[in-house]
Amino acid sequence: MKSIITISREFGSGGREIGKVLAEQLGIPFYDKELLEIASKESGICQELFVKHDESSTNSFLFSLVMGNYPVTADGRINPDMPLNHKIFLAQFDTIKGLAEKGPCVIVGRCADYVLKNMPNVINFFISGNIIEKKARILERYDIEKNKAEDFIRKTDKRRASYYNYYTDMKWGEAKNYDLCINSSKTGVEGAVKLMKDYIAIKEGAAL
Amino acid sequence: MKSIITISREFGSGGREIGKVLAEQLGIPFYDKELLEIASKESGICQELFVKHDESSTNSFLFSLVMGNYPVTADGRINPDMPLNHKIFLAQFDTIKGLAEKGPCVIVGRCADYVLKNMPNVINFFISGNIIEKKARILERYDIEKNKAEDFIRKTDKRRASYYNYYTDMKWGEAKNYDLCINSSKTGVEGAVKLMKDYIAIKEGAAL
Repeated sequence: MKSIITISREFGSGGREIGKVLAEQLGIPFYDKELLEIASKESGICQELFVKHDESSTNSFLFSLVMGNYPVTADGRINPDMPLNHKIFLAQFDTIKGLAEKGPCVIVGRCADYVLKNMPNVINFFISGNIIEKKARILERYDIEKNKAEDFIRKTDKRRASYYNYYTDMKWGEAKNYDLCINSSKTGVEGAVKLMKDYIAIKEGAAL
Repeated sequence: MKSIITISREFGSGGREIGKVLAEQLGIPFYDKELLEIASKESGICQELFVKHDESSTNSFLFSLVMGNYPVTADGRINPDMPLNHKIFLAQFDTIKGLAEKGPCVIVGRCADYVLKNMPNVINFFISGNIIEKKARILERYDIEKNKAEDFIRKTDKRRASYYNYYTDMKWGEAKNYDLCINSSKTGVEGAVKLMKDYIAIKEGAAL
């Protein structure tokens, strides 16, 4: 296994669990929320701020206009006046690149597919699911009222899509951006992991 | 194998060939352009018209307004004054349903996933590909100038997306609409077929 694996996922699809099982079976490191702690340590920005801004973007038109003034200073360093969520994105960007350069691993969310798109050995997965199974999954894991579950899913995915679409030139959840997209509602966690391992084996030419 | 397989595909991704090989290996019928001939025979509408309107929609706002008057007559029959491309869509719709009711088969394109969405034993695949491999594939198969290939791909996919989005309530190429989406550029035809067979086995509970 020489590949870096990224997993994008709908909320409630089990993407995190699938990624964790895959990483365990492949014997490689797994990063999801773990990324926030590493990026915080590396950047010196307090971890609470990473959690607060995790996969969230400010999408106002005005904000984008303002942003035009901030990207980098004349000598190429990140402008210290850059808004915080952009600093956080860039710190995560650096952390993801650094982790991928160390060797095979599984990274969940946070535009990792985009960050690593120029590396040749990256495999990008997307995990979706049907609303019934996604609702059941989040009701098991979050303290949330049953009749609010669907809205919670919709809003979380909207936030993830908006973060992704804001920071990349691609659209979140479009099949063409990924190597393999799996609906986990019909495969379960183990089935999805098996398909991913099959894909990795085919791509790496190890087996057909 | 009890499943009905639908395959949606980007132009040049090899979706037709992949579907054909899958159908052969599963020993079930395969329908792509073959559908047009069957639908023509069943509906009495001349086959040339099916070819001309194949996966094409008229997307003008005016046309949609006009369409409002046409869907069915008061007694539920298709209005004979309905525009031709809508008659053709409905004839294909009936043909696809009829074929699926006969038993397992592979159907390529033509909104078959949408037409069959209330059948429980349907599996929907989407095949995408990278532009370099898609260009190479169509240059092998079509008499087209090299510098026009990319534009030809873009326009054909735009037409397919527009046809799909016009007749269904879903968006063509969004991962969440399909059970499994495969980028064929890295798997090749055989690799994609293997992944589909793995998915079918997992879904049908035959193997893990």
